[in-house]
Amino acid sequence: MSLPDAFHEIAERVNNWGRWGPDDEIGTLNLITDTVVREAAAGVRTGRRVPLALPLRQGGVQTGMIPGRVDPLHVMVQINQEIFGPGTVACNDDAVTMGLQAGTHWDALPHVSHSGRLYNGRPAGSVTAHGGAEFSGIEKVRTIVSRGVLLDVARARGVERLAGGHAVTPEDLEAAEELAGTRVRAGDIVLVRTGQIQLLLAGDRHAYSHPSPGLSIHTPRWFHARDVAAVANDTLTFEIFPPEIEDLWLPVHALHLVEMGMLQGQNWNLEELSTACGETGRYEMLLTAMPEPFTGGTGTPVAPVAVL
Amino acid sequence: MSLPDAFHEIAERVNNWGRWGPDDEIGTLNLITDTVVREAAAGVRTGRRVPLALPLRQGGVQTGMIPGRVDPLHVMVQINQEIFGPGTVACNDDAVTMGLQAGTHWDALPHVSHSGRLYNGRPAGSVTAHGGAEFSGIEKVRTIVSRGVLLDVARARGVERLAGGHAVTPEDLEAAEELAGTRVRAGDIVLVRTGQIQLLLAGDRHAYSHPSPGLSIHTPRWFHARDVAAVANDTLTFEIFPPEIEDLWLPVHALHLVEMGMLQGQNWNLEELSTACGETGRYEMLLTAMPEPFTGGTGTPVAPVAVL
Amino acid sequence: MSLPDAFHEIAERVNNWGRWGPDDEIGTLNLITDTVVREAAAGVRTGRRVPLALPLRQGGVQTGMIPGRVDPLHVMVQINQEIFGPGTVACNDDAVTMGLQAGTHWDALPHVSHSGRLYNGRPAGSVTAHGGAEFSGIEKVRTIVSRGVLLDVARARGVERLAGGHAVTPEDLEAAEELAGTRVRAGDIVLVRTGQIQLLLAGDRHAYSHPSPGLSIHTPRWFHARDVAAVANDTLTFEIFPPEIEDLWLPVHALHLVEMGMLQGQNWNLEELSTACGETGRYEMLLTAMPEPFTGGTGTPVAPVAVL
Amino acid sequence: MSLPDAFHEIAERVNNWGRWGPDDEIGTLNLITDTVVREAAAGVRTGRRVPLALPLRQGGVQTGMIPGRVDPLHVMVQINQEIFGPGTVACNDDAVTMGLQAGTHWDALPHVSHSGRLYNGRPAGSVTAHGGAEFSGIEKVRTIVSRGVLLDVARARGVERLAGGHAVTPEDLEAAEELAGTRVRAGDIVLVRTGQIQLLLAGDRHAYSHPSPGLSIHTPRWFHARDVAAVANDTLTFEIFPPEIEDLWLPVHALHLVEMGMLQGQNWNLEELSTACGETGRYEMLLTAMPEPFTGGTGTPVAPVAVL
Repeated sequence: MSLPDAFHEIAERVNNWGRWGPDDEIGTLNLITDTVVREAAAGVRTGRRVPLALPLRQGGVQTGMIPGRVDPLHVMVQINQEIFGPGTVACNDDAVTMGLQAGTHWDALPHVSHSGRLYNGRPAGSVTAHGGAEFSGIEKVRTIVSRGVLLDVARARGVERLAGGHAVTPEDLEAAEELAGTRVRAGDIVLVRTGQIQLLLAGDRHAYSHPSPGLSIHTPRWFHARDVAAVANDTLTFEIFPPEIEDLWLPVHALHLVEMGMLQGQNWNLEELSTACGETGRYEMLLTAMPEPFTGGTGTPVAPVAVL
Repeated sequence: MSLPDAFHEIAERVNNWGRWGPDDEIGTLNLITDTVVREAAAGVRTGRRVPLALPLRQGGVQTGMIPGRVDPLHVMVQINQEIFGPGTVACNDDAVTMGLQAGTHWDALPHVSHSGRLYNGRPAGSVTAHGGAEFSGIEKVRTIVSRGVLLDVARARGVERLAGGHAVTPEDLEAAEELAGTRVRAGDIVLVRTGQIQLLLAGDRHAYSHPSPGLSIHTPRWFHARDVAAVANDTLTFEIFPPEIEDLWLPVHALHLVEMGMLQGQNWNLEELSTACGETGRYEMLLTAMPEPFTGGTGTPVAPVAVL
Repeated sequence: MSLPDAFHEIAERVNNWGRWGPDDEIGTLNLITDTVVREAAAGVRTGRRVPLALPLRQGGVQTGMIPGRVDPLHVMVQINQEIFGPGTVACNDDAVTMGLQAGTHWDALPHVSHSGRLYNGRPAGSVTAHGGAEFSGIEKVRTIVSRGVLLDVARARGVERLAGGHAVTPEDLEAAEELAGTRVRAGDIVLVRTGQIQLLLAGDRHAYSHPSPGLSIHTPRWFHARDVAAVANDTLTFEIFPPEIEDLWLPVHALHLVEMGMLQGQNWNLEELSTACGETGRYEMLLTAMPEPFTGGTGTPVAPVAVL
Repeated sequence: MSLPDAFHEIAERVNNWGRWGPDDEIGTLNLITDTVVREAAAGVRTGRRVPLALPLRQGGVQTGMIPGRVDPLHVMVQINQEIFGPGTVACNDDAVTMGLQAGTHWDALPHVSHSGRLYNGRPAGSVTAHGGAEFSGIEKVRTIVSRGVLLDVARARGVERLAGGHAVTPEDLEAAEELAGTRVRAGDIVLVRTGQIQLLLAGDRHAYSHPSPGLSIHTPRWFHARDVAAVANDTLTFEIFPPEIEDLWLPVHALHLVEMGMLQGQNWNLEELSTACGETGRYEMLLTAMPEPFTGGTGTPVAPVAVL
């Protein structure tokens, strides 16, 4: 069994292998130039900051459906420990065990492979137990700060949240772009709001997980045409799940991460941001969304901040 | 045994308990107002971004000296796993176990207590194995983006790095401030460069750990006078270690975290930033240094980015 | 609020504090003498061995009900790694993160405290984040090998498994003892079979967890009278759950661990053993049930073996 | 590069593939029959028990030389937590992160592969990040209880401990066997004492690690001739390290685990046992050394007990 023609036709059109040289390991993040960042900073109006990460804790996003992707187990390794003797300053120290994709996170480029290949044609076998990802590991990303644009699809469609079976299409993105009043351009990080995370915030992580609205297989071409640097949304699966085309699982992952070399983010809480943008009618921001530099990491927790 | 008068005299002068109300849990981060952030964004000149975090991996900073503070153990829990059957898109997923203070990190306010108290008078006993920090846990910090100012003490003193026994004094800070050409003001995040991290980058984590140059017990008053929001530097211990006053261990921790309610950062790699600032003669930046929101966390890894 | 008189009356009768000296840390394990073990070995008839542990894996016993008690996350840290160069012998290495009480386990004596005290009057506060249990940590147990006696309460009552609301009484134990055809005596390890674990083996960990049959508050006096060394059974909660007496939670834990200083085991799979004993009519065995010696551990995974 | 002829000649002679059928996953453990165990139990003389495991804790055996093999990080997840309300019984619960081969352990058969194969010809690729070892995982071992024989090579040679460069030969084993006064026979677990662990117990884990005395490449033939069920010793590397034949790394691992299908144990503390056996002149015992049944595990901590 292999991936269908429908997939390969799109793959051919959005493929970025070699675009930034044969040794490139960061893909579309190359589109975030100094100019892009300078202009993004210049676009800050109020200085208001909105956090987009979920808290990291047991009883978070994970249901056990994805083996090994465990919610954070936060533990104290020292509690008021008077290391230097009685009556001295006392220390608290903690540790954590967690799946790197367990909460609000970025998928690094090697998070998926298809047909034996990773982004830029690297062999899938270069990901090993010993060192993780040899190529495009998350530590290769130096920084992620750029202009962010909220494409509030739920609001543009006039609903509180999209239905579980809703595939977000290029038309949806353009309707939200019109609402946003700014054209998505090279180097932007696009935040696509479905509202699905309301289910999680209401306490039902199973309903949140699936069925889920999410990006259609047709959106990668749109992101590619606009030269977007990265895309994130407020769902567990990122793309519509179960998938639009029977037995074609995770096609958007494969197109974004492998073909385009574009990071994608999941479980981003866009609710407060939606409210804030709705109030001002302004949907662009300076967005900081820096990965934690795990050597060989195929993902990373991230605590993004929108500066309005 | 209790803390000496020399400590309490300073503590009294820098104490911020009640300043932002009896229920405040974030201390001097209150000083980062929308205006501060708006001006910091307006101060971006080139859009160049400099990362300040060390890679997260085994063989990192830790020597085993601090029990339970373990370097990141990064593991793959899925490698090219064809979850949905042969020939489908294959997944890589990873997990980590690590001390929250193991690498480049922020100390949260409850990282230390003294005399049975945490910041704002909360009882030290409110930190528990069950939930971590009940008050001022790192998840209470909504965002950290502000103006950053590099106080390059090593350069101001004309050395590559400060000697192990060097206590950074208010005079050192003012000399570096003069070099920086900007006055440190309310809401700023101050980055103090000693150069000590060069030892770590050269592969000697033991030499890096101690003896270490670091902040003198006299600097908290300076930071307090300037209403600084947070301070970070490029050492393991933050303050001079072994300490200036015999048997008075970690006094700067106690003054910053408990008395002032001011976050402090350690193991920040300021070398590339120093070079960049030296080239332009400009030592201020937009600094993003967002914690990962571990519920009850007394610390957090952080991957700061300076936008110049 | 404090524990009721009903509890304290029993506590007084079964208390073993000081019985083996003020410094004792292993309680009723003192009853396992060389003679007891020599006779247990002499009682081996066939050499058949029956394992009593559940597999250690994700999707094990835990439901998330008990915070921090996480099922084993088993990960590979090396896969066919040719450490010494291409073509050399290749290595596989693994690691685990798990709750010590997550699967088939022993509760160490300091697993619970009541009224501020642990076994032998040690202060509850001697259990710390820094070192775990200072007294009676599981590493203090040198060995656990003794005679085991299966008290098959389910079979003695003629049922496949006891109902969720069934409190196992001293009368139940004596009926099972009669079935066993041997009198429980000093130094024995008693295995009480309820059959509840069948629910887990059938895939329903929620039904397994509660309501659960288990030991009645009246059984500690029986175990004390017989000078039993340890007791284990095939439930999550060990004692009947929810409890017999309203608002009196975990009284059997407190009586066994704190008052008597007697280890107790949970999640032991006694199904195959029950079949084996039923076939021969012989319910005694040489039992090995060695803890893993975690320094300061308040519990331990155990993989017990019955030698028939 | 491939393994030299010297290796393959021995491999051919000791190979057990197919001996217990094409589907066998436990190798020489098949040699532990009911009769073997019955006789081992009958051989118990005093009932004295000697534990052979090192404590599990930070600051244990590991030096960081073997990536990912981390010493146990033991943490409390609940400390005197009154789960059911103030004044109720309070709970202590703990968790651990550790390498399965970090302390006293068994190597499972798939711990190494060579030439792309595991024991019984299974493909090396059947060990995956997803599930660990598909074949011969440690959970496939039902029980390990048998006769143990201490071959005290150090004592037989009249030294406190063997020198770092000493390769234990078949002649050494036979001299120790003569001292032991019993012939090693089918199904026995052989404990080979070098005394090397004295270095670890004295606090020097680096000296302990290497150079290390250990089994010569010529001993597998001896173990094979005697139909031994398993072998363990008191070193980190098990076999002499650095190796006897230049560039032939870990040949004994490959012969035992892959060719013979024989478990091997490392970091067993045989000091107290040596003293006990020396006192009585009797070197055989009933040995219990049960693995923890990690699903897919390529190793396991073990806390062996010798019953004399």
